[in-house]
Parts: sequence; C-alpha cells; structure tokens
Amino acid sequence: MRFTDAIHARWTRNDTLLCVGLDPDPARLPAAIRDQPDAILHFCREIVDATADLACAFKPQIAYFAAHRAEEQLEALIAHIHRRHPGVPVILDAKRGDIGSTAEQYAIEAFQRFGADALTVNPYMGHDSVEPYLAWPDKGVILLCRTSNPGGSDLQFLESGGERVFERVARLALEWNRNGQLALVVGATFPEEIARVRRIVGDMPLLVPGVGAQGGDVKATVTAGCTAAGGGLMINSSRAILYAGSGADFASAARAAAQATRDEINRWRRA
Amino acid sequence: MRFTDAIHARWTRNDTLLCVGLDPDPARLPAAIRDQPDAILHFCREIVDATADLACAFKPQIAYFAAHRAEEQLEALIAHIHRRHPGVPVILDAKRGDIGSTAEQYAIEAFQRFGADALTVNPYMGHDSVEPYLAWPDKGVILLCRTSNPGGSDLQFLESGGERVFERVARLALEWNRNGQLALVVGATFPEEIARVRRIVGDMPLLVPGVGAQGGDVKATVTAGCTAAGGGLMINSSRAILYAGSGADFASAARAAAQATRDEINRWRRA
Repeated sequence: MRFTDAIHARWTRNDTLLCVGLDPDPARLPAAIRDQPDAILHFCREIVDATADLACAFKPQIAYFAAHRAEEQLEALIAHIHRRHPGVPVILDAKRGDIGSTAEQYAIEAFQRFGADALTVNPYMGHDSVEPYLAWPDKGVILLCRTSNPGGSDLQFLESGGERVFERVARLALEWNRNGQLALVVGATFPEEIARVRRIVGDMPLLVPGVGAQGGDVKATVTAGCTAAGGGLMINSSRAILYAGSGADFASAARAAAQATRDEINRWRRA
Repeated sequence: MRFTDAIHARWTRNDTLLCVGLDPDPARLPAAIRDQPDAILHFCREIVDATADLACAFKPQIAYFAAHRAEEQLEALIAHIHRRHPGVPVILDAKRGDIGSTAEQYAIEAFQRFGADALTVNPYMGHDSVEPYLAWPDKGVILLCRTSNPGGSDLQFLESGGERVFERVARLALEWNRNGQLALVVGATFPEEIARVRRIVGDMPLLVPGVGAQGGDVKATVTAGCTAAGGGLMINSSRAILYAGSGADFASAARAAAQATRDEINRWRRA
C-alpha cells in the first residue's frame, strides 16, 4: 500500500493521529530486558505490540540502532511490524541528505534493506538530493522543514525575499510533490509555524515531533495543523511513551501513555 | 592524534591535499572481485593500500555500505586504515543531522563504533544538533556549507541580511569552533564561493568534493581555497580514482589517477 494511503486509513478508520517514536536508548531500557540478547529488538517489539492499535505510524530512529551495531534488530523490528500489524506504516527517521548517486544508495538502505514505508530527509542539498527517494512511487518522503529543537532557528528562521527559509522549504515541497509522496516535519514547539506551513501546503501530511518530553502543546498543535477533514498530522511522541514505566509493566505503562496522548489529540481534533 | 593535527601533518609532511573518497558502488566493482565474499571491503582495501601515501585523508561514504548490509566491512576497512596506514585520518561521510539526544547516538556510531576521525554533519538543524559531536575533542566535524550538486542552490544560495545562507553557515561555524574541530564542505563546482568562504573562516580546513567525475576545476579550486601556507584544503576525488580501471589492474590504475590528481593540485598550489 502507498504510504500516503496507509496514513489516511489510520487517521480515519483507526481514529488516531499518534505516531509512536521508537528511540531505544540502551541506558533507559527496563532492567528486566537490558541484559538480554537483542534487548533493543525485544523492548521495541513489546512497545509496538502494546500500542499498534493506537498508532497511525511507528517511527524508529536509526541512530539508536546504528550506535549499538543493531541494524539486524532494526530489520527484524520492521519486519515484525509489517507481519503482525499490517496497515501500520513505518517511518524510518534517518534524516538522510546527499547528492543523487549517494541518495540512491540511501533509498535502497531505507526502502529495500529495512523495508520502511517512508523516510525522513534533510532538504539542505536541494531538489536533486530528494529526487532519488521519489523514484520509489509507493514510499513517503518526509522533509525537515521547521524542527523542534532550539538551534532550529539558526538557519530555518532566516528571512529571505519576504519569507523564512522553512516557508521556502514548504513551497519547494509543494512544487516537488508531483506524485503525492511528500510530507514535512514541523515541530510541535512552534504552533504558529505549523499554521503557516499548513496554509502553504494544503492537505500535505505533517510529521510533528516535540509533544511529550520536548514540551510541545497538543491543543495548539492540533488546532494549528489539522486539515478540515480532521487529519493531516502524524503527532510523534517517543520518550514519554517508551519510558512511561521502567518496571516489568513497561509495556502496559507505554500503552496507557499512548492512549492518553491519542485521546488528548482526538479531544482537540473534534473541538 | 587530533583530526586537525593529522590533516596538517599530511598537508606538510606528505605534501598532499588529496582526499580519496571511498564510494564502492557494487555495480562498478571489478569483475574479478564482484562475487567474492566481502567484495566491498576487499575492493576498498586494495584502493587504500595503493593510494595511502598520496592521500591526506580517506573518506568512506556510509550509504554505499549501509545499502548492502556491509557495516562490518566498513568497520574492518577503517580498522585496516588505522593499522596499516597510521597517520592517515578517516572522514566518515554520513551527513548526519538531528536533535541533541539523537546526535549523541550518531557520534557514538561514527567515532566509537566505526572509529572515524571526523564526520560530515548537516547544519540545517543548528547549533544544538552540532554540539554533541564537538564533545569528542579529538574528532573533526565537517559541516555542509556549499554543496557541489545542482540543487545546492535551492536553499544555500538564498540571500538573507546581505549574505547567502552558505555564508551564514560559514560564520556560524567560526562562532561554534571553540576547540578548532570544525571544517566545512564547499564544492569545487563553485570556486567563487570557495573564495568567499575562505575569506570568512580564515585557516579553517575545507573539504572540497566535485573534482573528477563531477567536473570541478582543480586550478580554480586551489587558487580560491588554499591558505597562505599552501594548505587548508582536502580536495576529494572518489569515482575518478576508484573506477580508473576495471580490470585486474584496477588498483594500479587508481594509484595513477590519484597521483595525477595529487600532482595537478600541487602544481597550482605552488604557482
């Protein structure tokens, strides 16, 4: 299934805009799991199985696997999601960005090797660094636009020709989006900018990190970013869900946190 | 040894500004190697051994390994360079860029797992996305500034407050460079911009891709970018060296291509 179609189906049929981020920091894994073989996979699989019906997507962050030589665990995790929870798309958060010939290799890494349904991509190198991902017609390509971190303003907030750099990225994404594959990352810490991006890109999906541990406001995010149809957002929470509990009951604690966030999102989505 | 010191030593003692890029495209490996186990490692090791005395650095591009499940070959390749060619620093070209907690994991991946001496980093997410790499005091951090590809102009060439975005990146790098670890990527396809960056950053090292297969001019690059001391540049060539020959003599063909490029650089460096 096309990534965009899968996300739309989750928004409507499963009634959720919550994206569950999988950032398995080894130092924060529950004690009962930490020393097992394939602890990262084991932990993430439990989180996935406890939250899949509440998620519009899962978003594993590749650095947490690559730092610990755990690429095979990432492959197994994504295969598990596809097998056990068909219909829930997987966004590989890797923020790749390079010249065309190298981007072709990154596309193979993300879409063929890992089997991801979508990939986050850095727009700094421009159109030909994005094209190779768009050559995979079923896959989603999620460009960084306005990131949730403090340094995000260093370049993204520069003004040029009457608009900010992140607004320019949004307009470029609209232009490059011939096949409906693109989405944008806009941080929940900046609801005013979510609204500005929404005005530029129409119904294009937005991936919104920054609620939960990073402090973004759910009500402001939903109000600023939802489309008229009540969709359009993949609101990501990672640490607040993954580490909701640290004991043997971590998976049910994660489920409770995911459910509370999903419900909080839906409350404002319908207001 | 600190990355910056290692590079300076290569420039002066080994009289070379040539960086040999290791982008092992499986489709272009010599027939004699292609079907061997660990073909990527085998190919790169031959190139490395044939060119090490001519190189100021080696720059493996991680996508070419990750796309083919060859992380262990990359680990072995870098370990080989350190063991057999001590003093030649390794730049891991991965163009990472993410929020601080994730960047810490990418730093572990690059510097601890792979043992790289320097890493390329994308500046789009700003200062706190760069800081975690600078926390490794011996390591080099090479920020994308003005890239060599056509789409590089989409954002990097926007004008804001009387300067281009890439000039702003150069000024930020100067500001963030408290410990002398930073360098910048500036494409050989834009010698005028190399000169502008050089004026902004003083003696900061510049990694210059785009000579060879991408068509950048060696004379213009050296004239625009060398410091008064005749250093300051890591001029990268990948494909023109790697695929100089396709037969059993590929390693000696690579050496000849590397030597010609090194000599051509030195010719203008001294003019």
